[in-house]
Amino acid sequence: MSAPDLRRLSLNQATTEKWGMAQTIDGCARAGVGWIGLWRHKVAEIGVADTARRVRAAGLEVSSLCRGGFFPAASDSERQQRIDDNRRAIDEAVALGASVLVLVCGPAPDRDLDAARRMVEDGICAVLPYASDNGVRLAIEPLHPMFAGDRSVIVTLSQANGLAERLDSPFVGVAVDVYHVWWDPEVYAQIARAGSRILGFHVSDWLVPPPDHLLGRGMMGDGVIELRRLRQAVESAGYTGPIEVEIFNQRVWDTPGDEVLRLMKDRFSSQC
Amino acid sequence: MSAPDLRRLSLNQATTEKWGMAQTIDGCARAGVGWIGLWRHKVAEIGVADTARRVRAAGLEVSSLCRGGFFPAASDSERQQRIDDNRRAIDEAVALGASVLVLVCGPAPDRDLDAARRMVEDGICAVLPYASDNGVRLAIEPLHPMFAGDRSVIVTLSQANGLAERLDSPFVGVAVDVYHVWWDPEVYAQIARAGSRILGFHVSDWLVPPPDHLLGRGMMGDGVIELRRLRQAVESAGYTGPIEVEIFNQRVWDTPGDEVLRLMKDRFSSQC
Repeated sequence: MSAPDLRRLSLNQATTEKWGMAQTIDGCARAGVGWIGLWRHKVAEIGVADTARRVRAAGLEVSSLCRGGFFPAASDSERQQRIDDNRRAIDEAVALGASVLVLVCGPAPDRDLDAARRMVEDGICAVLPYASDNGVRLAIEPLHPMFAGDRSVIVTLSQANGLAERLDSPFVGVAVDVYHVWWDPEVYAQIARAGSRILGFHVSDWLVPPPDHLLGRGMMGDGVIELRRLRQAVESAGYTGPIEVEIFNQRVWDTPGDEVLRLMKDRFSSQC
Repeated sequence: MSAPDLRRLSLNQATTEKWGMAQTIDGCARAGVGWIGLWRHKVAEIGVADTARRVRAAGLEVSSLCRGGFFPAASDSERQQRIDDNRRAIDEAVALGASVLVLVCGPAPDRDLDAARRMVEDGICAVLPYASDNGVRLAIEPLHPMFAGDRSVIVTLSQANGLAERLDSPFVGVAVDVYHVWWDPEVYAQIARAGSRILGFHVSDWLVPPPDHLLGRGMMGDGVIELRRLRQAVESAGYTGPIEVEIFNQRVWDTPGDEVLRLMKDRFSSQC
């Protein structure tokens, strides 16, 4: 199987944590990386309008905006605040030219996972008309089960698919991040099931042993994930859009950004 | 729902890591804990015969021996060595009066999860006649997916159930450890499916945020797992045997053992 087209490569800016928003845009342009995955807190550094202007000026396209979600909360009013914040995220996505908003669905406010999962579904349901009216697609991203306690009660692609199927809209789909789903005995079946609902594909690697709970992701090729097989699976399912490299790792963060982008391009071609 | 019968409480000796084998047996006797879950490396400190003698003298019963497994390996000869080691573990279980051997199935020797999963199945298949001849039941323990890279390619109760069903023997079943399975949207359905194949139930808690990848387990009640609901589920499925408390946590290990056992008894009654 051949290497992926380098024109599909996207830098998710979580990979270059120490770069500011403007620096990241410039870095992508210097490296010839044509896509960028944005984070709202980084965009906030210089504002949505300035970010959008710089992205356009650099000739970049935005693969996704991270992140909406975090729907479960203890009270009605808190849940409403989360929904309002998701609507603001949709506004930002529109202004930034991001057609996809990634949803990290959030943890439970207590021990009741079932209730929290219902809150996620209700939350997406509440946000969906606004997303649809604004032409922004919501990508439900299942997180690795090790984040079930503090980041997301949606932890398998099967769950995300079930949610997306029930909501049944062209504006709801799933994001497949290899780091979150590689371990799943059902991953290939669930990628096939997702089909045209796949709205994003994120790559990194799983290091052995994992150096850290949160910052343990590796550069593609440094770990044990069958990256090429997974890419082939999402392509067979119909996804041919941008591929985001998203690596939370202190050592990567401590490496100069230009060097990270060079390595990322190399590994994208040789490993993905 | 009422508290569990304290007579079902078992100390898995991983919880009192700093205690030697003899100390742990004495500690259980002092605390009135009637069951103990043994680890082979701890047993090896004083030997199988002496451990067995001390366990009997203290009036304890052995809920399980940890651990067999680790079947996948790069070569035929290595895989055979693992199988031989599992047979030795079965011999030890017999000598120790442990009717259950817990299987931690092992990681893949490379990136090929499918092949490693077949090696697990082949390995259990190869060991099973010896287990059956010796009256030792093999409990396939699915580990949390965060251990998929370094400890076990069996990461869901669904997988473990599938394996056990295919092997279809009264000497193969599953171990349900809440720490490993609590996040799973299918956990209650899979517990029901396991039914009489449940050979062990282990409790601890999932702390938020997790303090460590390997040593991050909490005392029951300190985390977010719906312990009582899970216990009720395994009981409804038919399991009424010992309940092991297995907590890998540096802070727990640094606490004097008698104090840990007091807290463990209290939390077992109030939280499980």
